[in-house]
Amino acid sequence: MKPIQVGLLGIGTVGSGVYDVLRRNQTEIQRRAGRGIAIAAVADLDLERARAIVGDSVPVLADARAVIARPEIDIVVELIGGIGVARTLVLEAIAAGKHVVTANKALLAVHGTEIFQAAQQRGVMVAFEAAVAGGIPIIKALREGLTANRIQWVAGIINGTTNFILSEMRDKGLDFGIALAQAQQLGYAEADPRNDIEGIDAAHKATILSAIAFGIPVQFERAHVEGITRLAATDFKYAEQLGYRIKLLGIAKRQASGIELRVHPCLVPAKRLLANVEGAMNAVMVQGDAVGTTLYYGKGAGSEPTASAVIADLVDVTRLHTADPQNRVPHLAFQPDALSELPILPMSAVQTSYYLRLCVADQAGVLAQVTGILAAAQISIDAVLQREAEQGAAQTELIILTHQTREGAMDAALAQMQALPTVLEPIVRIRKEELA
Amino acid sequence: MKPIQVGLLGIGTVGSGVYDVLRRNQTEIQRRAGRGIAIAAVADLDLERARAIVGDSVPVLADARAVIARPEIDIVVELIGGIGVARTLVLEAIAAGKHVVTANKALLAVHGTEIFQAAQQRGVMVAFEAAVAGGIPIIKALREGLTANRIQWVAGIINGTTNFILSEMRDKGLDFGIALAQAQQLGYAEADPRNDIEGIDAAHKATILSAIAFGIPVQFERAHVEGITRLAATDFKYAEQLGYRIKLLGIAKRQASGIELRVHPCLVPAKRLLANVEGAMNAVMVQGDAVGTTLYYGKGAGSEPTASAVIADLVDVTRLHTADPQNRVPHLAFQPDALSELPILPMSAVQTSYYLRLCVADQAGVLAQVTGILAAAQISIDAVLQREAEQGAAQTELIILTHQTREGAMDAALAQMQALPTVLEPIVRIRKEELA
Repeated sequence: MKPIQVGLLGIGTVGSGVYDVLRRNQTEIQRRAGRGIAIAAVADLDLERARAIVGDSVPVLADARAVIARPEIDIVVELIGGIGVARTLVLEAIAAGKHVVTANKALLAVHGTEIFQAAQQRGVMVAFEAAVAGGIPIIKALREGLTANRIQWVAGIINGTTNFILSEMRDKGLDFGIALAQAQQLGYAEADPRNDIEGIDAAHKATILSAIAFGIPVQFERAHVEGITRLAATDFKYAEQLGYRIKLLGIAKRQASGIELRVHPCLVPAKRLLANVEGAMNAVMVQGDAVGTTLYYGKGAGSEPTASAVIADLVDVTRLHTADPQNRVPHLAFQPDALSELPILPMSAVQTSYYLRLCVADQAGVLAQVTGILAAAQISIDAVLQREAEQGAAQTELIILTHQTREGAMDAALAQMQALPTVLEPIVRIRKEELA
Repeated sequence: MKPIQVGLLGIGTVGSGVYDVLRRNQTEIQRRAGRGIAIAAVADLDLERARAIVGDSVPVLADARAVIARPEIDIVVELIGGIGVARTLVLEAIAAGKHVVTANKALLAVHGTEIFQAAQQRGVMVAFEAAVAGGIPIIKALREGLTANRIQWVAGIINGTTNFILSEMRDKGLDFGIALAQAQQLGYAEADPRNDIEGIDAAHKATILSAIAFGIPVQFERAHVEGITRLAATDFKYAEQLGYRIKLLGIAKRQASGIELRVHPCLVPAKRLLANVEGAMNAVMVQGDAVGTTLYYGKGAGSEPTASAVIADLVDVTRLHTADPQNRVPHLAFQPDALSELPILPMSAVQTSYYLRLCVADQAGVLAQVTGILAAAQISIDAVLQREAEQGAAQTELIILTHQTREGAMDAALAQMQALPTVLEPIVRIRKEELA
């Protein structure tokens, strides 16, 4: 049978990985898929770079639309990124009846509803394993592997750049700025790192995970997004003493009244596997009512790990493109007419526990004042760590771990504590997840 | 649409989990599958127990063949276990044109070739996610999630009973016999534990993993199978000092000349996630050339975790049973006409590194004799730990970690060392895997 024909839009880091792996493993892949997969045309604005990769064997065009329009193309792989041109091209490919494989998390987190509806109407697939956690087949695990389960929560390290920075901060006692600069030097962080360090990239991925875990539409605009820029070396030290690590987590959690969708730094018990995911690696935990806790670990970025996910999608589409569209796996794991209306909860309704670091005056009664406020708010305390003031210092640090409470209650208590004259600096608050 | 009709053969621990989860999560599952999944008949020799579980809603028969023969049954779920009756019933279901879902690793590891061929010819699916690592979707990850990759190795903790025993031996310094007795009391080990502690169950699963990782037929009879019964508390102590944990691993590894397929205790670096998988949990690592190292973790046994995998298969079959059989995922991940003839290597050709514990006479020159033998065999040494003899004792212990070598070379060197008059007891040899 003639190989399935793929049009590749964008041949940068991931695109060249797709090209290389498809060529290197073509026998292995065909033995699995039962059919060859061939790159039939490439679109890239940098024609020279593109031709240096693919040689003369494949036509290279500057015009992505011309690639989409080629009648022989069965599948369009979108690796351009961003939510502008990529959206137009993906919708155009769908309209032309092409299946789409994309690694573009931002696009799907923001415009997923529009794109999946268009694909549904046109009877084509949009596959996106590469959009979350690179080479880890987490989309497949959630959409197909855990279909028996009522998912309770998903929590993951889904941004390698920030996990690398946090690992360095912990291992070497570095403050954020220095760790970021090192990560940039080593190529783990981009020159403009905001998308990673502000938590935006992780929130795109968490949004996609929330949709396929709970059968809700993608709602990036309702995600709580908080990055790692305000973390200090001292908090890593205290966390360690208390038996925790600090990780940037993307969390999607079911509550009776809705879904929590949030990205922020978290204390995680040091004995959890997730706490021991180091460097640029990714890992996602999924808790289902039948299966219990499962975890998926691997490289979350990079040329060939991401290409691994893109090609897995190509094989899936190759297998399924002749199947009745009714019988395909639904884009968001649940049938499009069976999506849930469970709302994304506001942050004030989120339930979690907390690590608080207060810089307080070294005088009698401070602990009673602070704990009195928490008691009045019915927030119970799990552990307190009070450092003796250094000789001659008029201030000291007070660390409090709380049990679970509503974020709204904690916000109110924090405002009261902050107003105490004995609390001398802005209180540091880091959320804590037991993940059990 | 009418729910797909399932005949359940065997309603013990896993079967009742399947029944309960299907009922509890029926809405959730139907929202995903697009169609209901109904247990239409149950076969079990213990009619009373079966009726206590399913009540009057579902017919319960003692005769499994009568369930298979019912024309309304679309899928037969085989949860009887063993390789006798189960084989006959599975082949009968296939012959009757029914799809089969099974958790039976022994059956597939031993009779898989016959069963998959029969299914292929009849155009039905045999799905077996539950056969390896319980609720962890590792079969799906290997067959579908990592299709881009040339798999290099798979290594896993795929027997919860032995991992529980090994965790107890390490944590509490217990010898094997005591840890086993405790595991039996707690229900983690069966009254007749041989299938688990001798490594047979893990070897069934490793055999299945080897087939879908490398596209070779199942060849349980060629697996090297070694259990945990000869491990001593003292080896855990030394392993710890050297920075390792001891785990029972199922390993399938590609070499140029063939495939290694082996189950035995292993030293694993303590910093690897796999080394930190404790108690009855399972985890499987997969190394692919594009994706790098990935890991999958979760509950490997138990009623509902295993039911989670069985039901995921039911959803897959529900989605795919109307599809062209050519386009389904092949049973062993590779198209049946594209299986590889790479042989399973004999144990003497396996390449690994070693931990050796020698009880030696406390006299000058012993270390030189022992290391001389290794040097002559071109086995290089990674680390040596020599304990000072206890006061008045005439013997002491010598621990050696080697670099990688062929097992045949190590066997020969061990025989020479054992023949030394200064080596006083049988040498303990545990293989070591870096898993990097």
